[in-house]
Formats: sequence, C-alpha cells, structure tokens
Amino acid sequence: MNGGQALIRTLVACGIDTCFMNPGTSEMHFVAALDDVPEMRSVLALFEGVATGAADGFARMAGRPAATLLHLGPGLGNGIANLHNARKGRTPVVNVVGDHATYHKRYDAQLESDIETLARNVSSSIRWCTTPAAVGRDVVDTIVAAEGPPGQVATLILPADVSWGDGGEVGARPAAAPPARVDDGVIEEIAAALASGEPACLLVGGRTGRAAAMAQAAAIASKSGARILCETFPARLERGAGRVAVDRLPYLGEMAMAQLMGLRHLVLVDAAAPVSFFAYPGKPSDLVPEGCRVHALCPRDGDLTDALARLAERVGADARTVARAPLARPSAASGPLGAEAVCAVVAELMPEGAIVSDEANTSGLLAPQLTTGAPPHDWLCLTGGAIGQGLPVALGAAVACRDRRVIALQADGSSLYTLQSWWTMAREGLDVTTVLFNNRSYSILNLELSRVGAGAGGPRAKEMLDLGRPDLDFTALARGMGLAASRATTTEELREQLARALATPGPAVIEAMVPQVF
Amino acid sequence: MNGGQALIRTLVACGIDTCFMNPGTSEMHFVAALDDVPEMRSVLALFEGVATGAADGFARMAGRPAATLLHLGPGLGNGIANLHNARKGRTPVVNVVGDHATYHKRYDAQLESDIETLARNVSSSIRWCTTPAAVGRDVVDTIVAAEGPPGQVATLILPADVSWGDGGEVGARPAAAPPARVDDGVIEEIAAALASGEPACLLVGGRTGRAAAMAQAAAIASKSGARILCETFPARLERGAGRVAVDRLPYLGEMAMAQLMGLRHLVLVDAAAPVSFFAYPGKPSDLVPEGCRVHALCPRDGDLTDALARLAERVGADARTVARAPLARPSAASGPLGAEAVCAVVAELMPEGAIVSDEANTSGLLAPQLTTGAPPHDWLCLTGGAIGQGLPVALGAAVACRDRRVIALQADGSSLYTLQSWWTMAREGLDVTTVLFNNRSYSILNLELSRVGAGAGGPRAKEMLDLGRPDLDFTALARGMGLAASRATTTEELREQLARALATPGPAVIEAMVPQVF
Repeated sequence: MNGGQALIRTLVACGIDTCFMNPGTSEMHFVAALDDVPEMRSVLALFEGVATGAADGFARMAGRPAATLLHLGPGLGNGIANLHNARKGRTPVVNVVGDHATYHKRYDAQLESDIETLARNVSSSIRWCTTPAAVGRDVVDTIVAAEGPPGQVATLILPADVSWGDGGEVGARPAAAPPARVDDGVIEEIAAALASGEPACLLVGGRTGRAAAMAQAAAIASKSGARILCETFPARLERGAGRVAVDRLPYLGEMAMAQLMGLRHLVLVDAAAPVSFFAYPGKPSDLVPEGCRVHALCPRDGDLTDALARLAERVGADARTVARAPLARPSAASGPLGAEAVCAVVAELMPEGAIVSDEANTSGLLAPQLTTGAPPHDWLCLTGGAIGQGLPVALGAAVACRDRRVIALQADGSSLYTLQSWWTMAREGLDVTTVLFNNRSYSILNLELSRVGAGAGGPRAKEMLDLGRPDLDFTALARGMGLAASRATTTEELREQLARALATPGPAVIEAMVPQVF
Repeated sequence: MNGGQALIRTLVACGIDTCFMNPGTSEMHFVAALDDVPEMRSVLALFEGVATGAADGFARMAGRPAATLLHLGPGLGNGIANLHNARKGRTPVVNVVGDHATYHKRYDAQLESDIETLARNVSSSIRWCTTPAAVGRDVVDTIVAAEGPPGQVATLILPADVSWGDGGEVGARPAAAPPARVDDGVIEEIAAALASGEPACLLVGGRTGRAAAMAQAAAIASKSGARILCETFPARLERGAGRVAVDRLPYLGEMAMAQLMGLRHLVLVDAAAPVSFFAYPGKPSDLVPEGCRVHALCPRDGDLTDALARLAERVGADARTVARAPLARPSAASGPLGAEAVCAVVAELMPEGAIVSDEANTSGLLAPQLTTGAPPHDWLCLTGGAIGQGLPVALGAAVACRDRRVIALQADGSSLYTLQSWWTMAREGLDVTTVLFNNRSYSILNLELSRVGAGAGGPRAKEMLDLGRPDLDFTALARGMGLAASRATTTEELREQLARALATPGPAVIEAMVPQVF
C-alpha cells in the first residue's frame, strides 16, 4: 500500500467518503488510488474554489467533513476564499494539498511555493506527511482537528513521493472526547440576568441553528421574557413551518444597533458578540449597546445541548410548548418581476425538505421573511463574507443530500467567482435549481459607496460597480456548462419556469431579470 | 487629500497609470478617488485572478508595472495563483490589497483574516500603510521593490481608515540605481569555457527574451561554436521573421536531458539551471548532465546588456551578422481539424506585431515551431505553471498595446480558472482573439498519470481527468460574456473564422474542436 492509498483508506475508515478535487501531476497517485478504494466518492471541480466551497456545503448538511484535493500552492490559493468562509462558519474541512516530492522542493521548480504560509490563513491545523508509514496517523490527526468542535479547516500537505512511496499504513481514529460541560456558575449567572427584569436578548448562532437547539433557546427566551435574535449569517438554519421562527440580526450596523438598543443583557448562544461587518467613518465597530453586559452560555467547544437543557430547566422553559411558525406561503405574486417577487415565488413553490443556499445579497433581502412559513427546510448563508460561496455550497449540499431539492438563490456578481460549480452539478446529475438574480450590478457596492462616506461616486467610480456593458447572459453561460436554463422577465414566467425546474431531475438555472434594490 | 487619493496620485506620478481591480467595501475610497485622478485607468475584473494575471500581461508588454486592487484576504487569495506566475516570471506587480480599518481588525469581523501570511507566498516586499501621510512613501517603496530588477510582486496593504483619512501626501520616486556591473572575472571564465573546445551551450531566459539581447547571445554562441537554448517557459520572447530563432528546452525532462546530454559547460544567461518541472519516481530532478559545469553570466539584478556586450566583444561576436529566421509561413493546412492544423492556421494568418499568449498546453506543442518564420511578434508563456494565466495575460497585454493584435492560444481545462477575462476584453473593446482548443480533457494529466508511474489509470481515475460529460460549449460561454464567438470543426472553417476575427475590431472567441494529442 502506498501513501496515497493509505490516505484514502484512512479517510474512508474514519467515515470521510467524499472528496471534492481539482488535482494536478503531484496528486496523480492519489487519483490512481481512487480505483482501489471504491468507497471513496470523488467529485471533480473545474476550479479549486468550487471544491473547497462544496466541501463546506457538504459538511454543513452531512454533519461530517468532506475532503478536498488541491494542487500545490496555487491550487490552495484558488481555494482560499471558500476555506475562509468555512473557517468563519466553523465548518469542518479535511483540506488535502499535494506538494512536490520532498527531495524536489530544493530545486525551486516552477510550481514551488511556500504552501504553509497560505494554509496558515485558513487552517488551525497544518500537517506535512513525511513518510508513507505516518500517513495514516497524520490523516487521523487532521480529521480530529477538523471535526473539533468547533469545526475547523485542517490542512494536510501530501508530498508526491510520500504518496507514491510504499509502506503506507491505515490509521485508526481514537475515541472522541466528550465536549466540556459548562460550569453551573455560568448557568446561574445567565438565569439571574434573565430573571433580573432588565431588557435581555439571546443572540443565537452556530450549533443553535439546528431545530431542537433553537426551540430550546426560544423557549428559554419566551419563558423569561427575553428577546431572541439569530446571528446575521448562520451556516445552517433549520426553519420553516412547524419550527421556531427567529429573526436574524440585520447586516447593516445602523439597523442592528436599533435592534439591540436598550438591552442590558446579551446572552451569546454559540454566537459571537455583534460587530459591524465593515468599518464606517464615525460609526462604531462594536454593536453591543453601552451598559449592556454580555454573557456567553457555552464555549465553542463546549456541550451546547447540555447547557441549553440545564438553562431551560433552571428557568422552567419547555421547548415543546414554544410557538412554532404556521404553514403560510405568500399568495401568488404577479406583475413586473422584481427581487421581492422572485423571493415570493420561491417561497410559494419550494418543496418540503428544500435546502436553500443563499447568496442573493441585496436581491434576497426579503427571502428569509417570506419563507418563514414555507414547509420545513434548511437555510445556508454566506458565512465569511467572501463572495462566490453560494453555488459551491449548493453543490456540496446536494452531494450530501441526494434525496432533497437544493435551491441556490444567487446574485449575479457573486456567481462569477465560482460559476464552474454549474458544470459539476450537471456532471453529478444533482437536483439543484439556481435562481440567478441578474440586476447587472454589484448592487451592494453602490450602497456601500455612500455608506462609507465616499459620496455618491463619479462616473468612473460607478463604472467599477457596474456589470452591464456588456450584459452578462447567464442563460447562455449555464447552457455552455451543460445545464438546462431559461430566462424569466415576468413573475408569471418565473413561476412557470421554477415549477418546471423543481419537478425535473437534475440541475437547472433560471435567470431572473430584476431591477436593483438599491 | 485623503490616503486613497494620495495612493493613486503617487502611482500616477511614478508612471503607473493602469489598475486592474475587483474592489469591495473596504476599497470604496480608492474607487471614489478614481474620479479625481483621470490619469489613472481602471479596469474592472469579475474575479481577482483575472486582475492579477492582467497586471502580469500588462507589465510584460508595457515594460512597467500595473497596479492591482484586491479586497481583503479572500480577494488576495483569489489572486494568488497568477501572482505566483508573475513571481516566477519576474514580472513586476504593484499589488494593492484593501484591509479593514486599523481599529476594526480586533473585532474579528467576518472578512477579517491574516492578509500578510497570504501575501508572503508571492511577495518579496509587504508594506502596511499606517497613516495617510505615509501613504505616498509606502507606495514609492512598493513600486521600487516591484520594479527590481528582477521584477517582483510587491504588496501594499491599505486599511480603509488610512484610505479615507485626511493628510495624504504624494510620494516622489528616488533616482534609480543603475544595475550592478558583472565582474571581468566572470566574463573571462565564460569566454574561456566557450573557447575550450568542450561541448557548451548558452541557456537563455528572462531579459534575454528581447530581440536585441537574444541576437547578442546567439552571436556569442555562433562565434564560439556553442549551442543555444531558451528556457522552457519565457515570460516574453520577441521572435519571428528577421529575428534570431532559438529552440526552447522541452517541458518533458527526458527530452530536456537528451538535449543537454554531453555538455561540459552550461552558461546561464538570465536563466535558472534546468530542473524537472515535477518529480517522477526514479528520474532526476536536476537536469544538468554529470560533469557539466554551470556558469552564470549575470545575476538577476545585474546589468545584462552590458555583460552580453562585453562577452560578445571578448569572443569577437557581432550580433549584426547572426542568422535570422526568414519569413516562412506554413502552407495552407487543410483536412480534418487537429491541434497541429490549428497551430498551422494561426501561423499562416497571424499579423505582424501580434502578441501571442500561449496557454495551449498539449494542443499548442507545435505552435512555436510553426511560427518561427511568422512576421515579427511577441510570445508570452505560462511562467509559473499555475494554469489560468493565458486569458488574463492576453487581456493585460492588450490593454498595454492597444494598437496590436493579441492572440490567446488557450487550452480548455486551463481556460476555466479565469474565463471571466473574456467579459473584461469585451467591456474594454480589446482586439484579442482567443483560439480555444476544445479537446474535452485535462489532456496533460492523462500523459502525467503514466509518467509518474501511477499506471494507465482505472475508470475512476480517468474520470477525474475528463472534461466531457457534460461537454463544455465554449461558444455559448463566450457569447454569455458578450463576445462574438464561433465553432470550427474543420481546418477550412477555422481559417475562415480566424481571418474574419483578426480583421474585426474587438474580441472574439473561436472554439476549435480537436482530438487529444496524448
């Protein structure tokens, strides 16, 4: 068994059976080993950012990491943006990067670069495989690091000669340590804050995005008269009819501050204290109101389920009795197509069990609100602000959940970073319907230009935010990648096209022509 | 004047008048300043890898760097692969990366990451702007570092508050130091080696790619009975009819070793000692034959022109008398379309002054040989092995040379990393004709799979190297980005389409359907 085979066999032995890859020459022994280990499913991406984002989407839905396979420093570079998003979303990724043979590095060949410095930007754990015999152990250590909690990007660098060298050994996973129990003192402190009669709010995020934890948190808030808000961009939110509906903290700092105003206690439930996404002249970065105490219920690696249960018991809350969203779809939208009408039609038609990958940005602003009462579904957000995550995450989610429908709500500008995702959706025959909002602009930057105090922008500045001239034809782009595609210019067209796409196996793209929201 | 304005004004004052950008919120003050400094030409890219590759192509042809403008760590990540290529090709790039406001960084907002660790992978110089008053000096230092020689990627990190803060000052460029003169002893040593009667070869690269230097080197070789070879992937080669024709060292190590066999002296003329591109089991990385002495004529930062002139004088060589390639086009190819026929038609039709960006990989193998006698032109190669460079380099070269025709010879698999280049070509109305070799495969990896000793590959391995299923339709993709596009399936169709594209202003894509070479 060579090192490459040991790597794949160890991954499979540890339950990691999916690898999103864009390999090169230095990874050919890994690729060759795929035929020896049929339990490993390999998915080809045409660009590394697709592979890393797909690994993120897969892990969010599967609840276990996928592996990547990237080619040297430049391949890792291409994958950095979506690894950044995974890092910020605390999604586990087993990030495998091939390298030159160990003895070849000193010759500074053309593709030689310092891989580790790149990996450090996104990885809490970086391991070099140095011998085939150690590969199994290195893989296990990397998996354990990736899984956390919290989930992390853990990078394993595999030199070509370690991959082709004999003497590989399959590693065994150690027994997982249980997550740390939260101190009684913390539970008491928070219970006291909630009982104080002072304005309080639970800010939930991370693992609280799962329905059972959210119901528990909502019950605690309800029982104690506290408010509850969800972090702005959760990695995964189980929501819809029959589940607890929780508003998300707005993206715009001004609106978030208005939401939080007057609070004396902010209880963080697997969420970070709220900060402004960007800095703006004269506006605060820290969004916690003055005089508000921040309490953290549970560290990121702590036992959240247990902490929520104990706090619920302490305050006398019962998740079974907390209010759930009723089934309620928007009534049939009609008339001229706009961003809101698109969101309404999606809310009207999305099937039970849908997975929504939301990178609609400005166009999707109303989508969460309009889908509150849609049949139960999962909602996946852009976790790290690096655009180009939506389509790869949709792809990865669809690989993880082949029996569910995936809907990608996708802004035009953002789509163009990782558009190659569409080809892999077609190759894998995945049931992903992309609703592409074509407003021919980096609309959010038009908004931000004035928000940062840079004025309205002259014509040359505006030109840098404009995606027209020439107009992008996403229907043609999707067809070029082998997908069924159509363009909707009215609400009726959109409804008909979306209904058909959702009833047809395989991927499709619907290009919704919409005006800018801002 | 704010920091952003000071930055742009300093760039312009130092002769840097072109910026390829993909900005975000933290760069909005830079963007707003574009309307205050009309001398700065800004070119929007839809993906950062396009911007960084275009900056590379621009500098190769303009002889001076362009600037980039990238958004935070993830934006830099997306630009890394083509910055890697620029680094390996010693092309200067003034790489500007926006960052959060200095006071905002500690809040670990969603887009916060360690930018410097990414920059280190590609940059010999990294500077943080800390105050508006220091911006001008920081920019000048960055430009000087980028220009070298040798050319380098120099990174300037611009926090948003430094960009929007008042008190900016325009920096002034210091007088450039002349490059170091090569010692007489080195000239003597090499002259003696060339006069020894032992088999000798000049390996030329880097700055020797310009016609005058190449003629000088060829005259030295010719006069002393030495051979002359060019590095495998030069950044820029002035060649064609009336210029010296020099073969390039083959990509495949076995073939390169055959070329170099028996040599006793290898004289490096702004080139690195030859090494294998990748490592292969049982094959050497170092391609210098045993018993061959390696002599370096001139350090990368030395005065190459002077060193060549002195060596020429020492050996009695005269560049004016060295043999030049005669004007000779392939006779009209016909019949079924294959990679060779495509290259022949390009050679037949390419106009005088053409700039060829060559990322045709396996399909383009015969293109250099077939164009040896084409009218004088420039040839730009993939310098660092990170695929996805060809189209951005073509774009940047066209921005630098608006009066010349650019031909991008582009492999299908490689094109998909930075396909967004096409849109910017259309927006800028650039005369770039892309000849896209569609062989529906990562053909080079099929070759490499067996070369690394991984066997012929089973069906699952082969699947990872295959771009069919679904077939990519590059004609549709190009039209989706606003370009004229057509598909050629016979040699006659290709000739007719290429002739028309070369006679029409603006960009066009011709999709040449070809079988795999390997």
